[in-house]
Amino acid sequence: MLKQALLGVLCAAVVLSIGILIGHFGISKSSSSEPPWMKDVVKDVDENLIKQFLSEVKTSELDSFWIGVFLHRELTKIPHMATSPGDEQTVQFMLKRWKDPDSGLDDAWRQEYAVYLSFPDPEKPNKVTVVDPSDAELYTVREKEKPYYDDQRHPDVVQPYAAYAPAGHPRGKLVYAHQGKAADYELLNKTVDLRGTIAITRYGGAGRAAKAINGAPYGVVGVLVYTDPLDINDGLMSDTSETYPHSWYLPPSGVERGSYSIPFGDMLTPYLAAKGNLVSKDMATLWSFIPPIPVQPIGFEDAYKLICDLGGDAAPNDWQGGFNCTYNYGGPGFNTDSVFNNSDVKLDIYNHETVKNSSNVMGIIRGSVEPDRYVIYGNHRDSWVHGAIDPSSGTSVMLEITRVLGSMVKQGKWRPRRSIIFGSWGAEEFGLIGSAEYTEGKLTHVLRLNSAANATLRASGVPSVQNVIFQASQQVSAPGHDSLSVYDNWIKYSNRTSPTHGLIPRMGYLTGAGSDYAAFVHYLGIASMDISYTYDRTKTNARIYPAYHTAYDTFDYASKYIDPGFVSHQAVARTAGNILIRLADSLLLPLNCTDYAESLEEYLKEAVTLYEAQLQTKGISMGERSESGLTVAFCQKVNNCRPLKARRINDQLMLLDRAFLNPYAFPDQYGFRHVIWASSSAGKPTFPGLADAFARAQSSEEPRDWEKVHYHLSVLSQAIDGAASMLAEVI
Amino acid sequence: MLKQALLGVLCAAVVLSIGILIGHFGISKSSSSEPPWMKDVVKDVDENLIKQFLSEVKTSELDSFWIGVFLHRELTKIPHMATSPGDEQTVQFMLKRWKDPDSGLDDAWRQEYAVYLSFPDPEKPNKVTVVDPSDAELYTVREKEKPYYDDQRHPDVVQPYAAYAPAGHPRGKLVYAHQGKAADYELLNKTVDLRGTIAITRYGGAGRAAKAINGAPYGVVGVLVYTDPLDINDGLMSDTSETYPHSWYLPPSGVERGSYSIPFGDMLTPYLAAKGNLVSKDMATLWSFIPPIPVQPIGFEDAYKLICDLGGDAAPNDWQGGFNCTYNYGGPGFNTDSVFNNSDVKLDIYNHETVKNSSNVMGIIRGSVEPDRYVIYGNHRDSWVHGAIDPSSGTSVMLEITRVLGSMVKQGKWRPRRSIIFGSWGAEEFGLIGSAEYTEGKLTHVLRLNSAANATLRASGVPSVQNVIFQASQQVSAPGHDSLSVYDNWIKYSNRTSPTHGLIPRMGYLTGAGSDYAAFVHYLGIASMDISYTYDRTKTNARIYPAYHTAYDTFDYASKYIDPGFVSHQAVARTAGNILIRLADSLLLPLNCTDYAESLEEYLKEAVTLYEAQLQTKGISMGERSESGLTVAFCQKVNNCRPLKARRINDQLMLLDRAFLNPYAFPDQYGFRHVIWASSSAGKPTFPGLADAFARAQSSEEPRDWEKVHYHLSVLSQAIDGAASMLAEVI
Repeated sequence: MLKQALLGVLCAAVVLSIGILIGHFGISKSSSSEPPWMKDVVKDVDENLIKQFLSEVKTSELDSFWIGVFLHRELTKIPHMATSPGDEQTVQFMLKRWKDPDSGLDDAWRQEYAVYLSFPDPEKPNKVTVVDPSDAELYTVREKEKPYYDDQRHPDVVQPYAAYAPAGHPRGKLVYAHQGKAADYELLNKTVDLRGTIAITRYGGAGRAAKAINGAPYGVVGVLVYTDPLDINDGLMSDTSETYPHSWYLPPSGVERGSYSIPFGDMLTPYLAAKGNLVSKDMATLWSFIPPIPVQPIGFEDAYKLICDLGGDAAPNDWQGGFNCTYNYGGPGFNTDSVFNNSDVKLDIYNHETVKNSSNVMGIIRGSVEPDRYVIYGNHRDSWVHGAIDPSSGTSVMLEITRVLGSMVKQGKWRPRRSIIFGSWGAEEFGLIGSAEYTEGKLTHVLRLNSAANATLRASGVPSVQNVIFQASQQVSAPGHDSLSVYDNWIKYSNRTSPTHGLIPRMGYLTGAGSDYAAFVHYLGIASMDISYTYDRTKTNARIYPAYHTAYDTFDYASKYIDPGFVSHQAVARTAGNILIRLADSLLLPLNCTDYAESLEEYLKEAVTLYEAQLQTKGISMGERSESGLTVAFCQKVNNCRPLKARRINDQLMLLDRAFLNPYAFPDQYGFRHVIWASSSAGKPTFPGLADAFARAQSSEEPRDWEKVHYHLSVLSQAIDGAASMLAEVI
Repeated sequence: MLKQALLGVLCAAVVLSIGILIGHFGISKSSSSEPPWMKDVVKDVDENLIKQFLSEVKTSELDSFWIGVFLHRELTKIPHMATSPGDEQTVQFMLKRWKDPDSGLDDAWRQEYAVYLSFPDPEKPNKVTVVDPSDAELYTVREKEKPYYDDQRHPDVVQPYAAYAPAGHPRGKLVYAHQGKAADYELLNKTVDLRGTIAITRYGGAGRAAKAINGAPYGVVGVLVYTDPLDINDGLMSDTSETYPHSWYLPPSGVERGSYSIPFGDMLTPYLAAKGNLVSKDMATLWSFIPPIPVQPIGFEDAYKLICDLGGDAAPNDWQGGFNCTYNYGGPGFNTDSVFNNSDVKLDIYNHETVKNSSNVMGIIRGSVEPDRYVIYGNHRDSWVHGAIDPSSGTSVMLEITRVLGSMVKQGKWRPRRSIIFGSWGAEEFGLIGSAEYTEGKLTHVLRLNSAANATLRASGVPSVQNVIFQASQQVSAPGHDSLSVYDNWIKYSNRTSPTHGLIPRMGYLTGAGSDYAAFVHYLGIASMDISYTYDRTKTNARIYPAYHTAYDTFDYASKYIDPGFVSHQAVARTAGNILIRLADSLLLPLNCTDYAESLEEYLKEAVTLYEAQLQTKGISMGERSESGLTVAFCQKVNNCRPLKARRINDQLMLLDRAFLNPYAFPDQYGFRHVIWASSSAGKPTFPGLADAFARAQSSEEPRDWEKVHYHLSVLSQAIDGAASMLAEVI
């Protein structure tokens, strides 16, 4: 509301000046001789241009498909894991399109980083076997996923593996450790002696690396990870009728690959851009960035064989999964009735780490008025296998947006007020590396979008971007609907009641490090958003789309089961492009600071409910904090902000998230510096540092830990004061 | 040179546009109806205004003294140690002047911080005695300085003490530890068993706190500190004829007080503004911020008695001082011939720490065009006793500048383009607290000046400010000379040959944390300078003006021996005010990036000479670093920078120093983040992190320490690349 008011006031003032000018100097004189910077100063979003953009993100007349489909087909022809020949092919493809003289950008280039990656050995594939006491192999886990089409048979399909898990040959009795959370191992350890065991865990509940890092202290020597049919397939398991290629569900041999590293960015060059300046290979181990023991992911077909034969007590109810057997802890090891009785599970892992050159492909449309202010639109380019959804849906959307905007620029129809940078990040799958390395070198940007694609829009962001997402999504038709907007469709699936706005779609926050926004938000404090189309969560319990990071995430899968007709891709391209144009062209940045204040108030309310009473018993007052400048002051100051010039307001809005950065707030959490959105393990909808410090102090009851709670209150108070004074009128 | 060229191009462009406007729209129309922002856009420094300013910083016709003398007299009437009643009186005095309706600023206010300070106990003064084995007191060190005038008799003169040194009652045999450097104790320990001893050390060579921190690990239980006549008085010792009140030299009973803490800023709220949000009193000890053992400073009158009676071997030649006796190590303890034979030295220290409210007094002249860009002029206000030179010379200069500028503003003659903030910092003497707490809350400023006053200008700064200091000092007459400028006088005392400019005055760098600039440079990366008038170093070996931090630093002392007629004060006020107006009014900020590049090149050349050969033997190449973006790239990019708008160039110039910040560069050095100017113990004129890491690695020969050298090369390389790309044309 405030921003709207400000915008009104400001536009009025500017228009008025121009009015006087014209009136005074007379209309008869040719307007072409006005100094060009006068027109520039008042350049704002052109709604007609947005309409034109929306119509150019076309449906093909031939097949009534979104015309970006061919881009998607091209991008997903072969596997393109980071630094592979397929990756290089996508680099060339993008460079060619971004340099196209009719529809390309002003400039495009490749940006290389020397980054630390981990691969299996094609000559000596990783192997998981059940071996009896005489070393006879009783059972061997499938080496690669079962092929249904040529896509799975491509020689570049990488064997499923746990990137950055060390090589090694651990052997031991098998135990079932649920999701491999710290609490899971703690409970398991009460019944089973874990020393020398191999743990089998399922995806979900804890980060990938955590499943090994949590088990190692108990003496676990190796870890298997699989996706339980309950978590991904609504329990379905048969590939003769139920799973892909008959549906979107994961086939029994499908395996989720992934990075088993903790930080975002290249781990040998922490806080530095990776330009051959390796710090030390010990660093990764030293900082507990990687699993200390070998790990291998496997399909549920094999996990079924192993888990259903385990001995020992039955695991608790919430540890049970989709298999038609009781999940036991393990004796440790197998049931005495099992053919595997008395046998070990053995892992032979041959992963190796290596430094390779990974490329970001960058492109730019230069701004006409404020070329030194940047709006960044990014998406990663590397996949695990063909990556039809992750990431090629997003890449094809980005390419289609650049085609339409590039054509408008080349035809002289448009040039944005601010510069737009497009980033096709490399090596995301290994730990958001390309985008993080990029940010480690740069410091002055505005915003970043991400997109993937399928039943409703899903958007996360810092709260100040909510408004522009709403505005853009109201102007785009929902897939398959002519009269229903993306916004109106979204609000049906997911909504909340805002004290300011009433019923609105529910946006997520950018907590943690889920995708390439991480380094922008947490490291640089740049207002960011992450948008996608997603499935209907009332109809499935799948924790993610089932082919995620497997050899089945192909064009065939995407076009049959995720987005037939690519209509959601089209809607995302229109919405994202609309947002992008608004960010690049608005005289006043469409970032709403009162929406930020609303979120901070929610967080504060939650913190008071959760912590205040107990903190008082420790002599720590939250009242002081809130008086001394928490949300109340924030809003008051926001309401007082009446700066006179667009530039000043824009700098304030742009720098708002920067004010929340504190490089000393989370000494134990590499890369996190944003005190509002940092990753938190406490799982509370409130300030992360406070929540984690409180949980730790409550559990240890150490005075020093309560001091740390006090410290986090101070950090917060100062950050919020700082943000408020950033928005306040200049003194 | 480049900047000059740019300025030419830019001014031409702007003037040209205006020219067209006027030409086209005709001159007959009233120019009063031009929109006011058009005139604003091209507002630049007005040389006539500068002349007016210089003439208004007047000499009184009555006594031909600088008219600011009465301000100085007023400020130094009573002792005004931080948070004392005298301090409050200066706060009120400044507020009154800055709120004066005819000559005050636009606004002035008090800004309070709750800071951790340390004081002696007036009821139980600290005591140093020589006690014999039967506990008889054979000798007692003077409690307070000998009074010569009423100034020294004022009841608020604080007893000499070592702020932050802990209370305690250590007793032991005395040893002489030279300057208390780590190397001094190491050498001494080879001859004397230091366990249980009291060390007497002299000022200089190591920081105050370091003299205790270095000794404690060898078992030293207490430390005395004194100023040797050789280091301050060119050997003179007699107050009947040689020292103050007969000259500027330190009387025998004079004692330098000081803060014995390590960090800058309030030490209980590291990295946070001190607003009652104390972290923990353990923090100071934990972080090794303060001496672990009691310390007391004493006069050389007493030190003479103690040192000349010491037993043991004669200390090395370079440990000898100004006393007419041989400085022995100590037996430990006294000579067998001495009346003190077999006696101990005992310290009874009653210092106590307490949190008190300390005030900065802030004032502002608001900018007309860019009120959100700030030039900061600051000086601390608190003294140890009367503080005539430190800090009142600077405060009187600041007040005289604000009187002249304030009058011009109130008369409607002038308003700066950018806002000017004046800061009268509190609690500097306790560790630069007021200014550091201020910076911990703020982030967007341009520049800071400091001034004190006496034979030649002395200036330090980041290299980019050299040019504006030269320009201003060429326009001001040197004290006592009508035809010699401050610049021409300066170059006679101290000069160097620059590859670009030829023979120029020598400016210092802002390394370490000598004064209030520290937090601005090292914590926030703000281009800063520190200017003063100083004595002729060819005529004395005094390490600082002799009355520094003693009860003799009074108006009488200043007016008789430092600056008779206050002519140097006047010259400093004119020079500093001239610089200030240029920074606030220039269309393009007068910050010269090529001068920065020249300094970086010097540093690089030095680093190559010192380190390259040995680094090669460790497989670490500096060549790579320099190719990948050290100074060569910096200069190339600087030469390519042709941005079109003043705002963009100014942002780039303003943010240049910010690009050198890396909060992770010096994990062991609290508060230092500027990779070029951070404090360094290696004492080499080159990059501090590299120099220190190299020295450590060379001494330990640990591979991990060589890795840290490699790391610092990477940090440097990235910082310089970042700075270069900050200056490069926008992509």
